[in-house]
Amino acid sequence: MRRTLFNEDHEAFRKMIRGFVAAEVAPVFGSWEEAGHPPREFYNRLGELGILGIQVPEEYGGAGETSFKYQAVVAEECARAGVGFGGYVVHVNLVLPYLLKYATREQKERWLPPFAAGEMMTAIAMTEPGTGSDLAGMRTTARRDGDHYVLNGAKTFITGGVLADRVLVVARTSAAPAGDRRAGLSILAVDARSEGYAVGRKLEKIGLRSSDTAELSFTDVRVPAGDLLGEEGRGFEYLTHNLAEERLGIATTSYASAAAAVGFARAYVRDRTVFGKPVSSFQNTRFVLAECATEVEAARSLVDRAIEALDAGELTPADAAVAKLFCTEVQARVVDKCLQLHGGYGYILEYPIARLYADARVSRIYGGTSEVLKTIIAKDLQV
Amino acid sequence: MRRTLFNEDHEAFRKMIRGFVAAEVAPVFGSWEEAGHPPREFYNRLGELGILGIQVPEEYGGAGETSFKYQAVVAEECARAGVGFGGYVVHVNLVLPYLLKYATREQKERWLPPFAAGEMMTAIAMTEPGTGSDLAGMRTTARRDGDHYVLNGAKTFITGGVLADRVLVVARTSAAPAGDRRAGLSILAVDARSEGYAVGRKLEKIGLRSSDTAELSFTDVRVPAGDLLGEEGRGFEYLTHNLAEERLGIATTSYASAAAAVGFARAYVRDRTVFGKPVSSFQNTRFVLAECATEVEAARSLVDRAIEALDAGELTPADAAVAKLFCTEVQARVVDKCLQLHGGYGYILEYPIARLYADARVSRIYGGTSEVLKTIIAKDLQV
Amino acid sequence: MRRTLFNEDHEAFRKMIRGFVAAEVAPVFGSWEEAGHPPREFYNRLGELGILGIQVPEEYGGAGETSFKYQAVVAEECARAGVGFGGYVVHVNLVLPYLLKYATREQKERWLPPFAAGEMMTAIAMTEPGTGSDLAGMRTTARRDGDHYVLNGAKTFITGGVLADRVLVVARTSAAPAGDRRAGLSILAVDARSEGYAVGRKLEKIGLRSSDTAELSFTDVRVPAGDLLGEEGRGFEYLTHNLAEERLGIATTSYASAAAAVGFARAYVRDRTVFGKPVSSFQNTRFVLAECATEVEAARSLVDRAIEALDAGELTPADAAVAKLFCTEVQARVVDKCLQLHGGYGYILEYPIARLYADARVSRIYGGTSEVLKTIIAKDLQV
Amino acid sequence: MRRTLFNEDHEAFRKMIRGFVAAEVAPVFGSWEEAGHPPREFYNRLGELGILGIQVPEEYGGAGETSFKYQAVVAEECARAGVGFGGYVVHVNLVLPYLLKYATREQKERWLPPFAAGEMMTAIAMTEPGTGSDLAGMRTTARRDGDHYVLNGAKTFITGGVLADRVLVVARTSAAPAGDRRAGLSILAVDARSEGYAVGRKLEKIGLRSSDTAELSFTDVRVPAGDLLGEEGRGFEYLTHNLAEERLGIATTSYASAAAAVGFARAYVRDRTVFGKPVSSFQNTRFVLAECATEVEAARSLVDRAIEALDAGELTPADAAVAKLFCTEVQARVVDKCLQLHGGYGYILEYPIARLYADARVSRIYGGTSEVLKTIIAKDLQV
Repeated sequence: MRRTLFNEDHEAFRKMIRGFVAAEVAPVFGSWEEAGHPPREFYNRLGELGILGIQVPEEYGGAGETSFKYQAVVAEECARAGVGFGGYVVHVNLVLPYLLKYATREQKERWLPPFAAGEMMTAIAMTEPGTGSDLAGMRTTARRDGDHYVLNGAKTFITGGVLADRVLVVARTSAAPAGDRRAGLSILAVDARSEGYAVGRKLEKIGLRSSDTAELSFTDVRVPAGDLLGEEGRGFEYLTHNLAEERLGIATTSYASAAAAVGFARAYVRDRTVFGKPVSSFQNTRFVLAECATEVEAARSLVDRAIEALDAGELTPADAAVAKLFCTEVQARVVDKCLQLHGGYGYILEYPIARLYADARVSRIYGGTSEVLKTIIAKDLQV
Repeated sequence: MRRTLFNEDHEAFRKMIRGFVAAEVAPVFGSWEEAGHPPREFYNRLGELGILGIQVPEEYGGAGETSFKYQAVVAEECARAGVGFGGYVVHVNLVLPYLLKYATREQKERWLPPFAAGEMMTAIAMTEPGTGSDLAGMRTTARRDGDHYVLNGAKTFITGGVLADRVLVVARTSAAPAGDRRAGLSILAVDARSEGYAVGRKLEKIGLRSSDTAELSFTDVRVPAGDLLGEEGRGFEYLTHNLAEERLGIATTSYASAAAAVGFARAYVRDRTVFGKPVSSFQNTRFVLAECATEVEAARSLVDRAIEALDAGELTPADAAVAKLFCTEVQARVVDKCLQLHGGYGYILEYPIARLYADARVSRIYGGTSEVLKTIIAKDLQV
Repeated sequence: MRRTLFNEDHEAFRKMIRGFVAAEVAPVFGSWEEAGHPPREFYNRLGELGILGIQVPEEYGGAGETSFKYQAVVAEECARAGVGFGGYVVHVNLVLPYLLKYATREQKERWLPPFAAGEMMTAIAMTEPGTGSDLAGMRTTARRDGDHYVLNGAKTFITGGVLADRVLVVARTSAAPAGDRRAGLSILAVDARSEGYAVGRKLEKIGLRSSDTAELSFTDVRVPAGDLLGEEGRGFEYLTHNLAEERLGIATTSYASAAAAVGFARAYVRDRTVFGKPVSSFQNTRFVLAECATEVEAARSLVDRAIEALDAGELTPADAAVAKLFCTEVQARVVDKCLQLHGGYGYILEYPIARLYADARVSRIYGGTSEVLKTIIAKDLQV
Repeated sequence: MRRTLFNEDHEAFRKMIRGFVAAEVAPVFGSWEEAGHPPREFYNRLGELGILGIQVPEEYGGAGETSFKYQAVVAEECARAGVGFGGYVVHVNLVLPYLLKYATREQKERWLPPFAAGEMMTAIAMTEPGTGSDLAGMRTTARRDGDHYVLNGAKTFITGGVLADRVLVVARTSAAPAGDRRAGLSILAVDARSEGYAVGRKLEKIGLRSSDTAELSFTDVRVPAGDLLGEEGRGFEYLTHNLAEERLGIATTSYASAAAAVGFARAYVRDRTVFGKPVSSFQNTRFVLAECATEVEAARSLVDRAIEALDAGELTPADAAVAKLFCTEVQARVVDKCLQLHGGYGYILEYPIARLYADARVSRIYGGTSEVLKTIIAKDLQV
């Protein structure tokens, strides 16, 4: 069905991204996967091309766009080319909304220009070893000491954590009062060059190999009070504000991954013969592709509608949960089926379908597990 | 998410339908199920209320609306009340488009006013014992004899066949030329009072008990040549023209059924206690409802988009196939899960969820089986 | 794979049952479905043939077999012929174990000979409107009054309830002490001719139409104290003792239903042509049947192993829960797929696959819902 | 349910294997994963412990066991410890049956003692780039030249290919006659030190990282005629003879993987708290584990029955296909669900569940894809 989501500007942007990915990412992506992350300069290049600053206001060196649709274009084009750059997603989809919403004018002036230029890459550190989705249970502390906070603790699963220059760290700035485990958390934008700040192990993952996921540890890190984001003690509240956009981001990537998988499988089965016939001529092949294309079309309808809602400021947390839950499950089913159509090649990482498969498994976990999402949706149903 | 499909007119229509169903259908629906069809006068009542004539042009006694959205409203309201009137769907969704598109002015003048008034109920007879989805294989013949056709043969699975006053019968008017099994078919609008026209057995079905599904047989039925619809020999072509709308009709009903199932289950689990707690308080209950609501939201997004496409004259056969395939599978999964939440009551037909379940099984079969749809979708993917 | 479950005796019994079903059940089964139960004499005929008394000790007029395998044979042969007699299953699989285990010698002498002869058909009444699987919450009471109990209350979902001559009724004989809702229940074998005993509505179900499922109500029914089964107050304990056998019975029937569905579908697709080719020649048909046959083989392996364990006195409640959960889910998937292979005919009740489908839906509910079974299995896993 | 597959000898062997794996494999397994294979000496150690020679006749230095059950024990113990050694499986499960069945006495004397000792590790090279499951389409040739064959061609997906000392290579020794693409293939046991024999790229896979999967190429490799296995031209026939055992091997490993996944998940959810409660206390956790345990029990029943059939010489190709199809699908579902219960840790390769997940994806592909298996099963059903 005709898609109404994108206008000419988005399509022009898409054309630019497609060319850039084909020329500068796809040919070297294998080396990123081996290294565990893109070279640091890649992010400067993204800055140079204006890709990091699309949603940064013009006064801070960005393009001042407010629509999520540009992110959707990037997600689709990366998936289509079988590549990914997780650090970008974190930077733009996760961190930027916090800076736009909670940073002071002074902080914006300090942070947004290098943010847009790719000179200050960012990440966000919420999860701790042993807490998972239960943010209220975190144990990292930031004790006020004069005009600094003294930060101690450890975080894990930090996407982009190896290359990040500044990390939003969620820490407990005061003890949780009885009956309100969520109070007392704050967000500090910590400079990665600070003393006592250490990047721990890069975690070996099933997929997303070129996303540098790391552990971070903080030992008496002195963070200037001026790097507190928003008000002290309102961290939990802030974290929940951006969840809808974060989840829609994952929903979009997951949908794009499923759509790309159908493209790869379609190309493969048309090209390849077995028992003297093209694989595409077998009824099972055709039915499986039809099932996948059908699920992708449903996911596209849902995600497009959710993007319009986000742009209109109407996307509720439950809506975003629905979009993420649905699209990540479609992704899981579709990528699995499309891999199967590749036979043995589907298991070899040089084929994009294999990378899509390995990457896909995290979608149902990060940014709110499917179980957390179901809890939110059920609550919204008032059952 | 906010739905943009319906405007004020549609919502006013919805209010009328909801009131009508609550007052005049729901209280007596059990007796229809037992009888196997609504009383004949029910259709006159639908005519009186203007429900049958919404898409009939004003000059023929209808309201002249061209949007499919009114049908969607009826589907949603029926499902919501746990009732159904299959004869209406056939009349309005299947037959009317043929009359509007292929009937001559004379035929329209003769047929549309009683069509809109509920005085001439219609049905369509395609399938024959032993042919199923393979329309080209049909064996009913209509031999020209002067200014009549002489019709012989048998049809099966005719929804609305018991009460219909005039039936569109697809018959072979000339032998199929070699290599083109689809040629030589024509459509005759046969008067049910004709001599040699017989209504055979009402078929006992798993569900849809108040839809009178029958076999019809024709023994030397003389059909006036003036009751030929469109041109002789182009029947197969005509049949394919309306498939998209027919399939979107089933997609809509299926989506509505799934949405209604969630409503029934939600009400049930809130109301009912087990082991001293409301069923709604169990995590499994909540997760299952969340999964169902998520699938319903995806189906709604797809179906709404497809309805807009149909209204814009853009819905392709492959689009319609995608919508029907997806929505009928969502219906199957969701209704099954919602029934399970009812425990033993889910199996008892006085509970609407049980009827929804029994009715749902045919959705993946009629109007093009899921297998036929996958064939269409795969072809459209050019694999 | 070669099956080792049955010996020559079982196969001889199978031959007898198969002949009996073909000659005396299949030809008239349609009329049972319409009537809602077999004619009362049918049970006398089962008695005459020795089918009801297989597991009744010889001294009470039975064959004295202790193996469950004869029941498995009956289940398989009924499914294979597309028929069913639910009253028999309740009589032999549910009620008999209680009589054998808890009846006194005097009661056995009184009850078992007519039980085996089909003169005293039995049923069991546990569930009450509003309690479902939560037996401890029941409200039917039996107050001791001299040498009688005075029974008051209502039961629902009583399979065989219309034709039963004597019904095991679970009732509260003393108030539940605080903290032990399960205490105070007893089982009375109530004569259906007693004053105040009333058979309520026959419940209209999705399927199992020839199993007479009814509501029963008791108004000051005087039950002789000599008709108390086992000891007063131990009813709940007794009910749990037989659950493994009951659940294995359903597992067996469900497996047999799935196996029969594959047989019906296989015959149908070999026989039927579409688009000029036998349906069996389409790859999708072949793959679907292969998937179904595979699941059936797994279910057979599990059920055979569980039957051997039951015969050896080793089948735990968790084992039985595993068998029922797995086999009923296989049944649901396999019968659904095999119905789909029948196209429109699969929805028409005169085709056995349609009846198997309508019947199948209750398997995941009665005798312990899938949710109750999962609770039991999880507990057994010590999580 | 009590398992009857293993006797005391098997359990003693299990105890030895469990101890060995815990002491000598688990602690260093991470380094194997990084290196892409175990150190070469590990196989000598397996030889020393008698693990490679269990099914080698005593006269050739083995234990002379004929039962498959020892392989099942190894599969279970490896999975339980979250480790794997694919080279062993190929050596014992795939290659040995060929040597036992088709090698001459002279060849056995030459090959079996070093085989059992781990001095001559073996592999098998069937698949070629571009042929997949279609063995008859292979293009590697072996031209007779005096008392040698001259081997040319390339093979891919050779598990154990990096470390193998001798590889069974399937090659075309004469052109396929018209109408019989399967004729003209032979099996040569090629010494890896031969000139012109080259180990190509080690293939980067989604999982199975410590199984060294490689490409091999042959350029005018001179293979002594005395290294032909069996008769010339009967290679295809030989390949099909061992398929049942190979597929049962994968079925067993897949079942063991699923069983192990349940074990890991069970331990994880008991140990871990979220929102202040152990994960194991959530109903969803309990239900998911119960579903997984149920599927594992069914897989165990099927696989145990198939192992008994293999040992009895009765396992047909269709039986083996059923076992592999079922167990690999159970593995896929169960490992996925158990990973989800781990949350983010499930995606990190240091957790065994993550490795099980990455490894599992190949099961539905290698040794006959699910699609090939369904074709075999359908044929056996005579549809």
